[in-house]
Amino acid sequence: MPSPDEPSATPPRPAADHLVVVRHQVTSTERMARAGHAGAVVWLTGLPGSGKSTLAMALERRLFDQGWLAYTLDGDNMRHGLNADLGFSPADRQENIRRVGEVAALFADAGAVCITAFISPYREDRVRARAAARERRFFEVYVNTALATCERRDPKGHYRKARAGLIKDFTGVDAPYEPPERPDLQIDTDALDVDGSVAQLLDYVVARCRE
Amino acid sequence: MPSPDEPSATPPRPAADHLVVVRHQVTSTERMARAGHAGAVVWLTGLPGSGKSTLAMALERRLFDQGWLAYTLDGDNMRHGLNADLGFSPADRQENIRRVGEVAALFADAGAVCITAFISPYREDRVRARAAARERRFFEVYVNTALATCERRDPKGHYRKARAGLIKDFTGVDAPYEPPERPDLQIDTDALDVDGSVAQLLDYVVARCRE
Repeated sequence: MPSPDEPSATPPRPAADHLVVVRHQVTSTERMARAGHAGAVVWLTGLPGSGKSTLAMALERRLFDQGWLAYTLDGDNMRHGLNADLGFSPADRQENIRRVGEVAALFADAGAVCITAFISPYREDRVRARAAARERRFFEVYVNTALATCERRDPKGHYRKARAGLIKDFTGVDAPYEPPERPDLQIDTDALDVDGSVAQLLDYVVARCRE
Repeated sequence: MPSPDEPSATPPRPAADHLVVVRHQVTSTERMARAGHAGAVVWLTGLPGSGKSTLAMALERRLFDQGWLAYTLDGDNMRHGLNADLGFSPADRQENIRRVGEVAALFADAGAVCITAFISPYREDRVRARAAARERRFFEVYVNTALATCERRDPKGHYRKARAGLIKDFTGVDAPYEPPERPDLQIDTDALDVDGSVAQLLDYVVARCRE
């Protein structure tokens, strides 16, 4: 279909060329009006075992139940697909988080609340994720759970293995976690149970995304 | 090896954690029931200038107007973000298409009709994109426009430059385009005007995604 800048003095063309160029896609404003909320990235960060996935899934559920578009990116759907080519070297971990940030931005652009559940231990990587979202809403949420609590939970036994030296570069044990200095929201899961944590998160997101 | 993500299911933990593990996210069935349609990937392929982007935008518009979730991935939102690290070498082009396929699969998983508008000249790459979508609906749509028509339109002046040797490896000129052998849908834009093409595409998608 001809380009909008095609000169008007072109020779007669077959029917296929008598086309109206559709210049714009559906706008964010239209998507927001339809959904009743803005697109956004809810970026959960915290130590392994801090409860990010639990919170992400519960938030997704609650948002869906109130009629919102919500989708969670986590290791499950990212590491087995888009990021299946990445390993666990520092460069690959950084690229993993970069891609999560870019995909989350696409979902926000599509009008969804995109929740991400990754340790994302480095401030610099989280700053890049926010930058990827550009003018869209981006909330850095620090799931602040004491290391001792995370280690006691040890859902996959990784802390135990890390302490035994069986796995290396494990965040919280022999790799650093850089807590957010000024997170948009901090959830103190040592003080709140899961319902309280989810309620805090839900209230925060809804208040800032509702049209 | 340390996991980058939180587990979705954990073994029994001390009651002191006060946490209920939320194992499942919102299901595809629920998303479909809400939206009134299934998630899907509509993969447009065709020569440069064949009209993929025009069709994609028009389809997105029409689907949105009938209340569907629809989002288009194209060079604009992919090359400037997620794939900004990729150039135009054969390997990078392949990786570009691989990532588009994986992201489209995520959107389909989220319940959206994800339309992709990329030349995607190689059959192998399109096969991989379909595989990425796994059990989700995936429609390979061949936007079949004669090379002569594409070249006459030449919306970006690329054909002219390619013929002059100013750009290399341009699909249709000095790089191959492998047409789909058995596309799910073929749109003959030399026979149909844009409205007719969009109508054909819309009817096809709606019939196969409506619950």
